[in-house]
Amino acid sequence: MKKINIFETGAFSDKGMSRNILHDSPFFKIINFNFRPGQTMPIHSHDIEGELSIIILDGEGEFLGKDGYSIPAKKGDALISEIREPHGIKAITELRVIVTIAPPI
Amino acid sequence: MKKINIFETGAFSDKGMSRNILHDSPFFKIINFNFRPGQTMPIHSHDIEGELSIIILDGEGEFLGKDGYSIPAKKGDALISEIREPHGIKAITELRVIVTIAPPI
Repeated sequence: MKKINIFETGAFSDKGMSRNILHDSPFFKIINFNFRPGQTMPIHSHDIEGELSIIILDGEGEFLGKDGYSIPAKKGDALISEIREPHGIKAITELRVIVTIAPPI
Repeated sequence: MKKINIFETGAFSDKGMSRNILHDSPFFKIINFNFRPGQTMPIHSHDIEGELSIIILDGEGEFLGKDGYSIPAKKGDALISEIREPHGIKAITELRVIVTIAPPI
């Protein structure tokens, strides 16, 4: 077992979203991303089998998809997407999220 | 893509921890558990390959393990464990967590 608190370990950066790998194993990869207001994870996808979840721990923003798709993202939201579906995030306030990718990329 | 907000959909129960499946696929199973103060997920394990994460969305409690192991659990904590390691949770306040199991049990 290991425990990490993303409010204690997860930094922010003025240069862009901050990426902190919490765990990487054959089963899944778990990453904490932190965003200053206005920072984004650009829309992207990978043409492989698998799914990912994006859980919002704190803050508000938008989940982004293809063709201008955008839905609100707020604390307690869990977004589930195929890895090959275009997905992204935009922060409105400071935003802390945890992304889980299975199988790991 | 699908989005679920655990603060809007996740109920509590006076009878014991509440279990709300958010997603179940060949890649991972994602479950929201909600606890009233004092409620527990008893220590358990399964003798199979795989890992799970427990993310605390809100509240305070304890992560439980074998031989009386206990460490504080609070908002922003991510606990990662093998599925075959004994693990459990005890709530001190109302507690909302998201558990991700890969591969799904």
